[in-house]
Amino acid sequence: MKVDGRQMRTIWVEDDGATVGIIDQTQLPHRFATGRLATVSDVARAIRTMQVRGAPLIGAAAAYGMWLALRADPSDQALEYAYAMLIATRPTAINLKWAVDEVQAAVRNRARAERAAAALRRAGEIADEDVAINQAIGRHGLKIIEGIAARKNGERVNVLTHCNAGWLATVDWGTATAPIYMAHDKGVPVQVFADETRPRNQGASLTAWELGRHGVPHTVIADNTGGHLMQHGLVDMVIVGTDRVTAQGDVCNKIGTYLKALAAHDNKVPFYVSLPSPSIDFNISDGLAEIPIEQRAADEVTGMTGKTKDGRIETVQIVPDGSAVANYAFDVTPARLVTGLITERGVIAANRSALVQTFPERAEVMSKSNRKIS
Amino acid sequence: MKVDGRQMRTIWVEDDGATVGIIDQTQLPHRFATGRLATVSDVARAIRTMQVRGAPLIGAAAAYGMWLALRADPSDQALEYAYAMLIATRPTAINLKWAVDEVQAAVRNRARAERAAAALRRAGEIADEDVAINQAIGRHGLKIIEGIAARKNGERVNVLTHCNAGWLATVDWGTATAPIYMAHDKGVPVQVFADETRPRNQGASLTAWELGRHGVPHTVIADNTGGHLMQHGLVDMVIVGTDRVTAQGDVCNKIGTYLKALAAHDNKVPFYVSLPSPSIDFNISDGLAEIPIEQRAADEVTGMTGKTKDGRIETVQIVPDGSAVANYAFDVTPARLVTGLITERGVIAANRSALVQTFPERAEVMSKSNRKIS
Repeated sequence: MKVDGRQMRTIWVEDDGATVGIIDQTQLPHRFATGRLATVSDVARAIRTMQVRGAPLIGAAAAYGMWLALRADPSDQALEYAYAMLIATRPTAINLKWAVDEVQAAVRNRARAERAAAALRRAGEIADEDVAINQAIGRHGLKIIEGIAARKNGERVNVLTHCNAGWLATVDWGTATAPIYMAHDKGVPVQVFADETRPRNQGASLTAWELGRHGVPHTVIADNTGGHLMQHGLVDMVIVGTDRVTAQGDVCNKIGTYLKALAAHDNKVPFYVSLPSPSIDFNISDGLAEIPIEQRAADEVTGMTGKTKDGRIETVQIVPDGSAVANYAFDVTPARLVTGLITERGVIAANRSALVQTFPERAEVMSKSNRKIS
Repeated sequence: MKVDGRQMRTIWVEDDGATVGIIDQTQLPHRFATGRLATVSDVARAIRTMQVRGAPLIGAAAAYGMWLALRADPSDQALEYAYAMLIATRPTAINLKWAVDEVQAAVRNRARAERAAAALRRAGEIADEDVAINQAIGRHGLKIIEGIAARKNGERVNVLTHCNAGWLATVDWGTATAPIYMAHDKGVPVQVFADETRPRNQGASLTAWELGRHGVPHTVIADNTGGHLMQHGLVDMVIVGTDRVTAQGDVCNKIGTYLKALAAHDNKVPFYVSLPSPSIDFNISDGLAEIPIEQRAADEVTGMTGKTKDGRIETVQIVPDGSAVANYAFDVTPARLVTGLITERGVIAANRSALVQTFPERAEVMSKSNRKIS
């Protein structure tokens, strides 16, 4: 999407042909800065510190990380080491594992001299595929927004979203935001309620920033607010992204998503999840029981970073000295609360038969890989 | 309760017999400061800026405000002016109106020379009654906690609370916290999950502070987290306070309470609301339709105040320039989601017959005052 009129992606190969460029998302919304990753360790650090984040972008970044590793050392040992290092960065999103598996499969049976080039090619494909997937998600989701707009006789459509499943979370377009950007670009009046998304404020700092840069009307709200808005008819639909969808349609996403799904259900507001097929994990059924939920550092809860009146970036402590904190990064929304999954192949029900029917080749591959592991 | 070993209330008449002392809650948790209110305007400002907050404490403060007004000018006009000024400070809590009505009734038919003394007496009674009410709430709620502790064979009882309905929100003991303090003091192992409570962070800044001062184990969590904890059996009960309960048992409380009630309901976690009877509004039935929801300033959402590494108190901006925000301060939890109301007269169902049966004299008085108004 555009930043100050310049068309950008969130990740790219630099002109030197040897490094990977990223938008440093920890600096947003107050500073727009790009970074340059030269080694697989750089990539792992960028993922861990969330300079790059969002399940699809993590996948693309990890794929480029495999390339950087093989560029430095194309041995089997280096390949294995890079794989392990990248997998260990974040436990919840499945795209990460999918992407490094893809690159590994693309290089494993090649001569060493060919490995780096093959990895770069597959990483580039993964990035391009993500863009194409999100565009397809956008086209399918657009129809839902247009349907609501028609029923509202041209009144604006209010969409609530949680966290950032915007273009910053992907290579471009975003999953949850692609339908919104397409509606806006097409002149459908759309307004977004962006949940702040504590503790890391991805909604306030990333979603609000990217919507603002693209000119989409939006309102930042505290995470506590969505239920009240839905009770009063102020939300027409919810669209969120996901870090992993199980074979039965349970949705793992940023902590707090489950609460919004409950409120949507209680108020008959449609609750949609946008997902690229690499976010489906056919090896897992019961999301609550089986998806590992990352617990992150306490300082994300105890501190808050922002801009002071005189323009400095400062972190302030907001919890008393001595108080314990807990920081679960994701929760699981049971499939029963999901109105539909917006995928690159259309809007489908959140259940096993719809997922298998829509993505038979992924269901097949994953159940094979599962058998191999077990 | 105790602050650094010293027994305190949140509001008191200063030794000069002419001013009211308060804890300045906007400075917590990083600085403990008291303030001195000399006029009704001082009181109105303290309520508006939330130096004093919490429905019961707002009521007591407003009662003292009436005293300060009459102390300066005991005329009918001054009485009317003070009443109007105080009522206008915050629209949602009903205790405020109840308290100024009480003082007005106590002084209206008196000679001017007697009015200030009568107002002071009634304000003092209101403060003392609040303490007694909360102690009674504590005793009733304690039984619930002890019941859970017995079922858990002495394992700790995990209580989730939202916002601050602690002693800082009342004159002493708190509504939601009274059962917790009593359980803790009695040796029942109890642990509190304190919702941060964006946008003003009353959970992180006030609940965590007061629990910490009293030595009650507690964990601060982002508002997004409670649903996940309940899904995984980590919460045994929820106790929240309220700013107004309607005749049919709908509960108005800090924004986000409804989301936690939904999660509690979905996971069969008991959801209790602690309330002193002055929080009941028998003139209103449908909380969603009839309770005015305060909308507060944007800067509560766009900014965050805390302590820098070098100990300064600083406010940082966390929303991009140019993004709109909405700041609804309260929401309404329908009675159907409430397991029970913990009142000073026992734990009762959240419905009209239980409320009228338990507080017949309040149901009577309020329906009379309603007829008079209409």
